[in-house]
Amino acid sequence: MSSHPPPQSIHHEMRNAENSAAYLLPKLLAMKETNPHLTILDVGAGSGSISASFAKAIPEGRVTATDKNKDILLRAAAVAELAGVSNIDFQEADVFALPFPDATFDVTHCHQVLVHLKAPVDALREMLRVTKPGGIVAAREGDYDTECCAAGCINKFAGGSTNGGRQLLSWALQAGAKENRVTASFGTWCYSTQADKQGWTEVIVNTIRNKEGALRKGGLATGMTTEEDLEEMAKGWEEWNRTDGATLGMLHGEVIIQLQVTSSKRIV
Amino acid sequence: MSSHPPPQSIHHEMRNAENSAAYLLPKLLAMKETNPHLTILDVGAGSGSISASFAKAIPEGRVTATDKNKDILLRAAAVAELAGVSNIDFQEADVFALPFPDATFDVTHCHQVLVHLKAPVDALREMLRVTKPGGIVAAREGDYDTECCAAGCINKFAGGSTNGGRQLLSWALQAGAKENRVTASFGTWCYSTQADKQGWTEVIVNTIRNKEGALRKGGLATGMTTEEDLEEMAKGWEEWNRTDGATLGMLHGEVIIQLQVTSSKRIV
Repeated sequence: MSSHPPPQSIHHEMRNAENSAAYLLPKLLAMKETNPHLTILDVGAGSGSISASFAKAIPEGRVTATDKNKDILLRAAAVAELAGVSNIDFQEADVFALPFPDATFDVTHCHQVLVHLKAPVDALREMLRVTKPGGIVAAREGDYDTECCAAGCINKFAGGSTNGGRQLLSWALQAGAKENRVTASFGTWCYSTQADKQGWTEVIVNTIRNKEGALRKGGLATGMTTEEDLEEMAKGWEEWNRTDGATLGMLHGEVIIQLQVTSSKRIV
Repeated sequence: MSSHPPPQSIHHEMRNAENSAAYLLPKLLAMKETNPHLTILDVGAGSGSISASFAKAIPEGRVTATDKNKDILLRAAAVAELAGVSNIDFQEADVFALPFPDATFDVTHCHQVLVHLKAPVDALREMLRVTKPGGIVAAREGDYDTECCAAGCINKFAGGSTNGGRQLLSWALQAGAKENRVTASFGTWCYSTQADKQGWTEVIVNTIRNKEGALRKGGLATGMTTEEDLEEMAKGWEEWNRTDGATLGMLHGEVIIQLQVTSSKRIV
């Protein structure tokens, strides 16, 4: 693990259950009431600050944090240790082929994962598979097309989906969930203070200008963007950061799929 | 008052402090702790369901609900009576020339008002004027440009602002608030259930097709839209309503301006 994590990791580690899974917390706490030994699978956990936060919320339960990137899980282990939680395991895993039997977890969760995938419905289906009857699958995904800044600059995205938030309910239905088992909502993300704006500008400008990064390489390789567009985008964010009263808001789609309590294969 | 209020009124009356002023409630309740006789001015209150909800939250305080439309205030009075609140007054008023002395109210609030105005900053300045030192001005405004539906249809707006949500902090600064006295946030609105989608489709399609309505008349008069565009828009919403998994999300900008406790004229 690098001793100097990149700005993106530091930024993402501001995320916790309270600011990134508020839609899910009441349900989680209600489930804990009847079953303190709750098991949570956090898919695509990254540096794991949300996973650690879940582990804190269920001290008698257990969190399994997975990511396809083995290195980031080392960082996640450090984050969990810093947070003082030990009821958490880390495991390298492909979201399309999770290394767990059917019906393993009470709760399967992901945050900002499906928007990066070409086949989000397949991922959701796999998440449903490893979830117990009576359990839940929960997802929260940004809707980049709604990203708005008063200064008018636009984020682009290399690969995946730029409007996953609004598609989340549709993806859940396509993955086999019945409509009356899904609760959909929207949450937001907001940067308006000078400190938040500065922090986000560093992250996004660094991402845009990083010659080895996926956004730049992917955008250029697919012809979705040009060097000039990318530089204009970076400068747009810097201008936004300097502009008094400029804010950043973005919708996040949220779904909770409640699995039926049944032994049948058709659990949603 | 009409005995058959239009769908738009019925729709808007779903609004209450909990679903439309959640960002403000904790602050309001904290202020009530130290001053149970809180006074709230609700500007552009319309049929007043949020105003009535505020009145319920401050039983020893008093709400003044104003609107430039005298007729809608009759409906608001009925809504308040139905809600069982009596600590509320109604008064016809122009938001640009509020009929109150300087520093009259502890809290001055508006919801989905500034987006309808050509000079939102002037309105905010007037709201600041009638608010007491140490009081607050709070506003929540939709950001129509972020409105997203999985089925891809778009709402247009005749007059006013279509991205007021993201401009709210900027408007507050322009109206004289100092940056460190303003808290900005974003909230959302979500339609995803069949009942919600049906209800909203009736409202919006009725608004679009209403030959006497401001959206249609304004849009056609200014050349912003055509008969064909409007019909396409109405059909788009109907298709959205029929589409499984289609949702509607929209960002709402929110600001709370905390006025300084001072006798000087420069209170923000």
